[in-house]
Order: sequence, then C-alpha cells, then structure tokens
Amino acid sequence: MTLNIGVIGTGAIGRDHIRRITNTLSGARVTAVTDVQPKAAEETIATYGLDARALATGQEVIASRDVDAVLVTSWGPTHEEFVLASLAAGKPVFCEKPLATTAQGALNIVKAETALNHRLVQVGFMRRYDAGYRALKSVIDSGQIGAPLIVHCAHRNPDVPERYTTDMAINDTVIHELDVLRWLLDDDYVSAQVVYPRRSRHAFAHLADPQIVLLETAKGARIDVEVFVNCQYGYDIQCEVVGEAGTARLPEPMAVPLRVGAQRVSAILTDWKERFIASYDVELQDFIDAASEGTAAGPSSWDGLAAAVSADACVAAQGKPGAIVPITLPERPALYV
Amino acid sequence: MTLNIGVIGTGAIGRDHIRRITNTLSGARVTAVTDVQPKAAEETIATYGLDARALATGQEVIASRDVDAVLVTSWGPTHEEFVLASLAAGKPVFCEKPLATTAQGALNIVKAETALNHRLVQVGFMRRYDAGYRALKSVIDSGQIGAPLIVHCAHRNPDVPERYTTDMAINDTVIHELDVLRWLLDDDYVSAQVVYPRRSRHAFAHLADPQIVLLETAKGARIDVEVFVNCQYGYDIQCEVVGEAGTARLPEPMAVPLRVGAQRVSAILTDWKERFIASYDVELQDFIDAASEGTAAGPSSWDGLAAAVSADACVAAQGKPGAIVPITLPERPALYV
Amino acid sequence: MTLNIGVIGTGAIGRDHIRRITNTLSGARVTAVTDVQPKAAEETIATYGLDARALATGQEVIASRDVDAVLVTSWGPTHEEFVLASLAAGKPVFCEKPLATTAQGALNIVKAETALNHRLVQVGFMRRYDAGYRALKSVIDSGQIGAPLIVHCAHRNPDVPERYTTDMAINDTVIHELDVLRWLLDDDYVSAQVVYPRRSRHAFAHLADPQIVLLETAKGARIDVEVFVNCQYGYDIQCEVVGEAGTARLPEPMAVPLRVGAQRVSAILTDWKERFIASYDVELQDFIDAASEGTAAGPSSWDGLAAAVSADACVAAQGKPGAIVPITLPERPALYV
Amino acid sequence: MTLNIGVIGTGAIGRDHIRRITNTLSGARVTAVTDVQPKAAEETIATYGLDARALATGQEVIASRDVDAVLVTSWGPTHEEFVLASLAAGKPVFCEKPLATTAQGALNIVKAETALNHRLVQVGFMRRYDAGYRALKSVIDSGQIGAPLIVHCAHRNPDVPERYTTDMAINDTVIHELDVLRWLLDDDYVSAQVVYPRRSRHAFAHLADPQIVLLETAKGARIDVEVFVNCQYGYDIQCEVVGEAGTARLPEPMAVPLRVGAQRVSAILTDWKERFIASYDVELQDFIDAASEGTAAGPSSWDGLAAAVSADACVAAQGKPGAIVPITLPERPALYV
Repeated sequence: MTLNIGVIGTGAIGRDHIRRITNTLSGARVTAVTDVQPKAAEETIATYGLDARALATGQEVIASRDVDAVLVTSWGPTHEEFVLASLAAGKPVFCEKPLATTAQGALNIVKAETALNHRLVQVGFMRRYDAGYRALKSVIDSGQIGAPLIVHCAHRNPDVPERYTTDMAINDTVIHELDVLRWLLDDDYVSAQVVYPRRSRHAFAHLADPQIVLLETAKGARIDVEVFVNCQYGYDIQCEVVGEAGTARLPEPMAVPLRVGAQRVSAILTDWKERFIASYDVELQDFIDAASEGTAAGPSSWDGLAAAVSADACVAAQGKPGAIVPITLPERPALYV
Repeated sequence: MTLNIGVIGTGAIGRDHIRRITNTLSGARVTAVTDVQPKAAEETIATYGLDARALATGQEVIASRDVDAVLVTSWGPTHEEFVLASLAAGKPVFCEKPLATTAQGALNIVKAETALNHRLVQVGFMRRYDAGYRALKSVIDSGQIGAPLIVHCAHRNPDVPERYTTDMAINDTVIHELDVLRWLLDDDYVSAQVVYPRRSRHAFAHLADPQIVLLETAKGARIDVEVFVNCQYGYDIQCEVVGEAGTARLPEPMAVPLRVGAQRVSAILTDWKERFIASYDVELQDFIDAASEGTAAGPSSWDGLAAAVSADACVAAQGKPGAIVPITLPERPALYV
Repeated sequence: MTLNIGVIGTGAIGRDHIRRITNTLSGARVTAVTDVQPKAAEETIATYGLDARALATGQEVIASRDVDAVLVTSWGPTHEEFVLASLAAGKPVFCEKPLATTAQGALNIVKAETALNHRLVQVGFMRRYDAGYRALKSVIDSGQIGAPLIVHCAHRNPDVPERYTTDMAINDTVIHELDVLRWLLDDDYVSAQVVYPRRSRHAFAHLADPQIVLLETAKGARIDVEVFVNCQYGYDIQCEVVGEAGTARLPEPMAVPLRVGAQRVSAILTDWKERFIASYDVELQDFIDAASEGTAAGPSSWDGLAAAVSADACVAAQGKPGAIVPITLPERPALYV
Repeated sequence: MTLNIGVIGTGAIGRDHIRRITNTLSGARVTAVTDVQPKAAEETIATYGLDARALATGQEVIASRDVDAVLVTSWGPTHEEFVLASLAAGKPVFCEKPLATTAQGALNIVKAETALNHRLVQVGFMRRYDAGYRALKSVIDSGQIGAPLIVHCAHRNPDVPERYTTDMAINDTVIHELDVLRWLLDDDYVSAQVVYPRRSRHAFAHLADPQIVLLETAKGARIDVEVFVNCQYGYDIQCEVVGEAGTARLPEPMAVPLRVGAQRVSAILTDWKERFIASYDVELQDFIDAASEGTAAGPSSWDGLAAAVSADACVAAQGKPGAIVPITLPERPALYV
C-alpha cells in the first residue's frame, strides 16, 4: 500500500521533498532518483539512506515499473516534457512551479490531461496548504465578511541578489499571489496594471523596486499587491480581504511577544523558506494521498495555466506603466470546474 | 490677556467650538456670535451662558471692536467671503473646511494673505492634531523607516445617507487624507487615478462604493486610499507608511481588550465624531495660542488651496476610470515654505 | 466666575499644576502661592507670569480672601495640617497623595469633613481619571464580563534610586493600585499577603524586588499585584480583570506599530510621568469644576483613609512573609456612600 | 526499519494515536492491539485497516515478538503495571499521563528504569512539544529576558461536567502546568499554596472554581496559576514569564483577525482537544524516532514522578487554605540529569 515515488531532479527542493517523504510523511517511499548530475542522484540516495535506484534520465524514472508517481523538481525548462511524459504513462505527477515556462507549454499539459479526462497533475503552489491562508479562506467562505470587494496584499523580502530582475517580481514573486488569490476568491483575473513608486535606494540600479500590481477580477474585485523585495526588515506576507460587511486578514506567523528594552517586540521571519515550511508537508501529503488513489488533488494544471497567462499579462503591464492590460484565459474544461 | 473670539455660524460644529472655548480650553472667550437664524445665535449665548452679543451679520462680527479673532463655522459657500474680510480687518481667522468651495476661491485667499505677508488663516484640518498621526509623523521624521515609498490608506464609514454622492467621497471624505498625507510626507501630489471595485450591495444605487484613489507625489511616493463609506462594521481610518527600511502604521484608537464568547474582542468606533474628538481641542487651542500672538499656525490657506486643487483632480479622475489625471499647483509663495 | 486658587508648595508637582491651571485648563487662575523657600514661590509667579501674590505660609494662603480653593502640593508631613485648615475655612482643597502620613491623620480629616457633612476634599489619585482605567471600569460596570473574581496586576518601573526602600514598594508604588482597584471593583480589601520571588540582580542589595502583593476583597475577589521596580525594560502598568463570563484588560498606551529590523515593534514608555500625563489635566479640571460649585468630587478623604489603612496592612505583611494580615476599616460615614 | 508498535487500550486517545501512526507519522506501524473490551480492539483494526492482531491482554501485547515498542493508553490505574512490564521486556514504552496513579507507583517505575540504567519510558506530557511553548523556552534559554523570576499562568476551560471535582483542578488540569513549567524553567518546586477566590456562579455547587495555585521553585522563582474551568468564554492557556530584563509570553493560537460588527475580533478555541493537536504528532514522532534507536526521549518517568509528587502537595494545599505546603522530591538519579 506504500506509494513508490520517482524523483526527477535532486537540487535543494528535490532533496527537501525526498527528506520529507522519507522521514516525515506517511504512505510513500522514494524508489527511483535521477539528476542531470548523476553523482548528485547517488549522493542523495546515500544521504537519506534510500532503498532506491539512480537512473540515467527522467524518462527512465517515469517509465520505471517500481515508480507509481513522479516528482518533478528539475530545472524549469524541463518541466513540461516530464509532466507530459507522466501523463502519457498515466502516472500522477507533482510538478514544482512553474508548470511550464510558457503559457503555451501549460496549455499543452492542460490539453493532454483533459484528453485523459482524469486529473493526474498537482502543481507546487504551496500557499494553498498554509494554515493561515486556509483559515482566511474558511472565514471568507463562511460569509462573515460578505462578498469580497477588495484585497490588499504585500509581498516583501528583505533583499534579493543582483541577478534578480524586474520581471522576476512577477514570475518568481507575485506568482504566488496570482495563484493563491484566485483560490481564495474563487475568481479569475481580467486585467492588470503596474505602478512604480520611487525606487528604494537599497535596490540594485537595474531593478524597479518596489512595484504595485493592480488586478481586476471577473467578479469585479480589485486587488493591489505591493511587491517589495528589498524591504530590509524581513520576509513579510500580508493579505487583507475587504468584504461587504467586514474585513479579514492573513494571520501573522507565530512569534513570542516580548517586552524588552523599552519595546513590545515580536520577531519577523527573514528567511522565506521558514514562512511556509509547514505547508510543504501538507502539500506533499495531499499528493501522496491522492496519488495512492490514482489521481491528483490541489492546484491543477489549469491553475498552472491560469498563473502563467496572468503572469504574462503582468509582465506586459510592467512594460507599459499606467496601461491596463487585459487577461484572457481559454475556456475552462469541465475537468477543472 | 484673554483672546476675544467672534463666531460666525452656530450650527452643530460652531456650537461645539463655542463649548470647548468656554468650558475646556484656556485663554479665550466668545464675545460675539452671529447666525443666519438670529434666534440660533441668541439661544447659543443662553445655552453656554456666554457674556457675548448676538450680531446681525458675519461682517459685523469681524468688524466688532471686542473681537480679536474670528471663527468661521458657517455654510461652506460663505467661507471665502468671511475669511477675506477677516484678512482685510487684520484679524486671525479659523475657517472650518472647506476654505472655499472652489480652488479659485482658495487662491483668492492665498493671494490676499500673501499680500499681507503674514499668516492669519488656519484651516480646520483637525487630523494634523490627532495624537496618532502626530506619533506616526514623528516616527517617519526620525528616519527609523527610511524614506517613504508607499502609503496604504483606508477611510471607512459604516454607512452614509442617500444624499451622499460619488463626488462626496472625494470632497467630504478623502479630503482629510489629501491634507494629512501632504503634511505627513512633507510632499505634494502630481497625479490621481480612481479605480472602481465591485459596488457593495449596501450602497445606494447611485453611489460608487467602495472606490480606490491612487496618488503619486512629487517625490515619487505612491498612495492608495480605499474609500468605503458603507463598510457596515465601523468608522475605521487606516494608514500604513512603507519606507525604505521598514513600515509604520497609524495606531488604533484605544479600546479595552476583552475575552468573551469564544472571541478576543476590541471595540471599533462607529461614530466619526468620536474618532478625532480630542484633536479638535488641540487644534483650537493652537489657534487661540497663535491668535493671541497676532498670527496663525497649523494648516494654512496654502494647505486649503492644495487640498482644493487635489480634490478637483480626483473628481476629474472619477469621471475617467483608468485615466491618470495630473495635479498642478501654482508656485508656492515664500510665506508658506 | 473664575475660581481663584491658592497653591501651597511650588516643587515639581506644584509648578506642574500651576502650569496646567494657567495654560491648559478652563475656569480657574492662581492668585496666591507659598513655599517653604519664599524665593521659589516668587520665581514660580515670574515663570508663569501669574497675577498672584507670594505669601509667607500655607495658613496665610488658606485664609486669603482672594483664594476660593486650595491646592496642597507641599511636603507629605504637612498635608494633614493644611487640609484640616482648609476644611476649617470651608474651602475646597485638592491634596496630593498622601492625604496624611498616617492612617490616624487621614481619619482626623475624615472626621472633620464628616462633621461638616459636606465634601470639600479631593485626593490626588490620578489613575481614576486615566482614559484607559475609565474604559475598563465602563466595561466591568456594563456586565459584559460578569462579576469580577480575580484581578492580575503588574506595576513595573525600569529602575529606582538607591534611596528607594522595600516599604516604598507599598507606600509609593502599590498605593496607586490600592486606590484604583477599590474604585474599579467598587469593593474593599479584607486581607493582604506578600510573597518574595528571587531578588533581581538589578536591585540594590537592601531592596526586595520584585514582590507580589496578594489581596482579598470583601466581595471575595482575589488580586495579585506584581511590583517590580527594576524591571529594566520600561514603565509598564498591567491590569487584567477576570469575571464570571470573560476577561478585560487595561489598554496599552498608544504607540506606533513598526516593522523594522526583523521585528514588529511598539515603543513602551520608560518615564512614569508620561504614562498618566493626560489624567492630571482631567483630574484637576474635575477639581476646578466641583470647587466652583463649592464642593469636591473624585477620590475623597475616605478613599485617602482606605488607602492608608490598606497600605499599613501591606507593610505589616511585608514583615511576615506568608502570613495573611487582616485589613479593617472603620465604619464608612454616610457622606462617602 | 519500520517500528512495530503494540497498543494497550483503544479508547478515544488510543484510537487517535493509532490514526496518527497509520496516516500521518513516519517510520512505524501498529501490529498488535488490545482493549478490555475485545470487540473494541477488533473494531479499531477494521476502522484503520491495520495489518495487526487483536490480543487478549496488555501483557500479551508487550510479550509479542512482532511488537518493538508499546503504547499505554489504557485506564490510568493499569498504567504502572504495563510500564513495568515493558521495562521488564526491555521495550520502549509511551505512557499517557498519569504515569501512575500514586507517587509511589511512579517511584517504582523510576527505580525499575534506573536499575536498567537506560531510558525506555516517555510520559505523554504533550505541551513540551507545542510550538508555542518551544518558542517560549527558546527565548528564555537565549537569555533575552534574563533569569526568570516570576511566571503568571492561566488555565481556563469554558466549563466542566458535574463529575469534575475540586482535586481534579490539580490532577487533571494544573498537572499540565506542573510538568511544562519545570521544563520551561529547568527548575523544581519546593512549596505550594492554594487561594480560593469567590466562586463563579457558573460552577457546580461542590466545585471551588476558580482557584489560584502559588508555587515556589528551588531557584526562588514564584509562579501563580489561575485555574478557572468554568470561565465560559473559551479554552485559554496563558503563560507570561517575567525575567530580570524583560518578559515573554506564550503566543496565542493562530486566528484570523476580523473587523466586523463594530469589533476587532479573533476567535478563541473552545475545545481543548484542538489547542495542542499539533503537539501530539510531534510527541509521538519523537517517541517513534527514539524507540527506533532502542531508547526514549522527551518527558521521562522522573518527570512523571515529579509531577505526581507536586500534584499531591497541591491537593494537600487545597485542604489547608493559606498554608504553604512543602514539595520534596527524592534524590534525582544520574539517569535523569
């Protein structure tokens, strides 16, 4: 009854998922591993004491008879190929974001899965598994604050390396809001606009930072997302939903309230990896549970496509300050309703 | 040494100012009163036991020898006339907002005061006297959060009567943010844009509610002001300033933290009159203190003009959803630097 | 109609009250001043530009025909004499705490005032005028949390000078809780116990710090007051009332919430003088208003006596760790019911 | 490499542990089950789809060759026998609290384990595994607030059934504080006193509620624990540690901050089972990990003994209001240092 998982890509996130499958989660084990660096795959097997084989390619992993389900944690440009191959093999596949590096790639996957008329793909949008976002969604769905009209968000990092470029504010940063807000509101985006405040002196000269992304949804809600990746003070994710009868906020991460040195103080996280760490466990357990039943749950390839299309529009809006760029999704297949 | 004040207009706010001059503040007394309803002036004198005369017109009040300073709390369209007359008489004058009902009217006052080369006018923007805004400004000015880049604001009322129209969201509501944010940031606006979220079902059909006003400042800061006058849950003023090194928020009004009925609870005010009640005392004492020295402090006629010009642009932006409307002030006279 | 006030004692607190009568409050002026240092009285008149006479003694001030009401802000051991003299003269008198340095002295005053069958004395327990305590009392009186069963308090100072002795933790520090909690609960104390935690290494060797004072009330409520006068981090007053149906806390003083340096931060006051500064204004205005009517309001001489008797019991309990010391008040005269 | 666990007792908590071993935790499976109601054991096997045998007695479970480690979740009076038998069999054993129903029983276990000179017993004090308490301990151990001098605690339940008796406030309720505070402070208790506030009208007539338990530690810290099991408003666990340089509090459980109906609101839990639900997972995983290495971690049988001895003293103190009852532990064996 144990699910046999094959892992494609043993970089940081791949190894982290292998660790949690092996030591923390229930109902699965890693039986096959591959990496573009064959030595990395073998070292990973040794490090975690896996009873697994190191295979030469992702395709071999997918084809392997002792692999029931696939984890794609390789380089982004390879995702589409491995997800499509998993679909062809009829095996559940968990794919780290992005599902594909282009909207067309994501659409190819949606079409392949739609042809099967059976969900097999889960995309690695972990925020949907965060206890705080889940509690917030539960409050919204309860009707306590009425229909959502406005969402105010902030996505702040203490700093970013020099290689972080202006478009990465969308593709690597706001991409999380793009997914989680669709889910939170049960809605889709229809337009995007980008506003550039005065640039922080802590940002590298080539980077527009902070930025504000304005979104409009099909139901008419308005969203503002402040993206500020050199905010200095911490990794801070804010989300306030304004409804017709009240407001609800994403809870702050747990912190010990102190009184010291003439201050009431609570620590703010500085490392993004700690912020959603618990949600990775829940996310992957959800994959294991669904895959054990031969299917997939959670963020779908349709969600991956929606995120890709929306992100493309936001990047386009970055290039035309003040302009309102429409966001148009293809018709949603019944499989994803 | 006691300042003799003449009051023009004994409506609710006029009587309220008379009460605080008489019972609460120090260094002034009301010696002359007028109202368009002569009986109202006499009743006010009786109610507060004033040793004052009821005069027939505002002009008589201004001209009266036992009036050292003037309080203009009459109907908005009369403000310009009475402020100009006070300037002509060389008497300090406190004018409730608006300073004038048009930008041109405010400009007339600025010019008259500039010709005197001496400040005599204080405009009734009381938020600058609120302890919370003052503490926030003190934090910003201390440099703790670095240069301000973004300001997120919300101005929420539980509900409004049917006569409240869409443009009043600017002229009666956002007008307070327009003044206080200029002061908070020591900056001016250069453009405005208005965004319309889905209308709340609690708003009358003729009213666009909520609205979001986006402002850009001369220094490049970006401001978003959510105006939501049918938010149902309370009168709630939010202001978060995002600086290069940190953020600072307007403190919440004092409330007793309770634990009852499975909830941690703190009351939110529902009546706007209570929110800034203490600031009216500080504001008017500031007027008394400066007027006793023959001058004026606090929000100037230039600030009144800047608010009027900015509000006009916002109303123009309301009419062109998505458009970015420039805000242009005349050159600032040295008197107001 | 202006109340003429004579001030006995122009030390720090005397001058502070003179300043607020002159510049801030309404309806009174200082007409006579005395101090054991005649020069100090004259300097005070000059500093505040008073239209007042410097008199040789407190008795002269009380007897003066241009003095309607008396402020006793002299050295503690002189309070009883001046309050009794004011009563004999039939003049309202505000006496800074302590009302007398012994319970017997306070009882003498209670008897003299009871003989007049008319309240003339207000004792300077300013916490009853603090907006936070008033809001807390209002919540308790509303019945929202049910009958009070337990009160948890903390009274923390950052540090104290070497001359601060163990009994001063009662007579100078807990004395404020002893008064304000009687008022808050509308109750009296029946016993006291003192517990000594491990001594802080920041306390001088002669001082037991922190201490915990346990009180029982006539209605059966139990109170614990942590007194910690070398807590290092700030001046912090805490009060949590546990009722049959919920709890209510004293609100924190206003502070700007910041996010800086990996912390959510709000400042804590370090100077006790700032904590209740606004309440001194309300307190003295209350005295002026009542004295203008020929009487006194607020904390009475009975409250001063109750505080003195309770403090004596607490000091006795300090000397017998673990022992429960009864607190017995004389019968309450009808004047104070 | 999977740990085979035998479970003695399939009541609510036994089944809950079986569920988490089977569906949530990593590295173990349930292979044998027993209950005083044989049918209950069989039903449990069916419910969770276990590949396990239903055995007739706890002794059979302990003796079974396919049982590597034992879970004792049976009726309290049987705990001592099964833990001793597990020790005799040399098998790691997790025992729900109480370790034994008497201090002598706990001492028997300590002696048996000490004779083995090897830890095999973990007691089910789950609060040590709560993320909030762990964060609080981490702050204390960091030295940020200096040496702990005072701890203020509250343990509040909304209500209790009629069978809940006054001594259960110690043995079922305060028992959790008795364990977790020893661990938090790395200290032992030397005395206890109980104070009875006015009884809540919501308590059954036979029950003293609330109560306050005062503890003194070997290092001189003073602890007050308010126990209030009919507080009506929720299940609320408070803990504030006052150190020489600052204070630290147990974080509140996560809750969505709402603004609705003129209130800022966050939900308080009402069901104690939800409060520490996540800590049960961590606790049992810790047992599995240590048992897989042939030993035990976490709360030891010495901790179980210390809790029993301390609880006995508290119950004695309940019978002598105002008296200070000494708490004396035997000498601590080296195994537990």
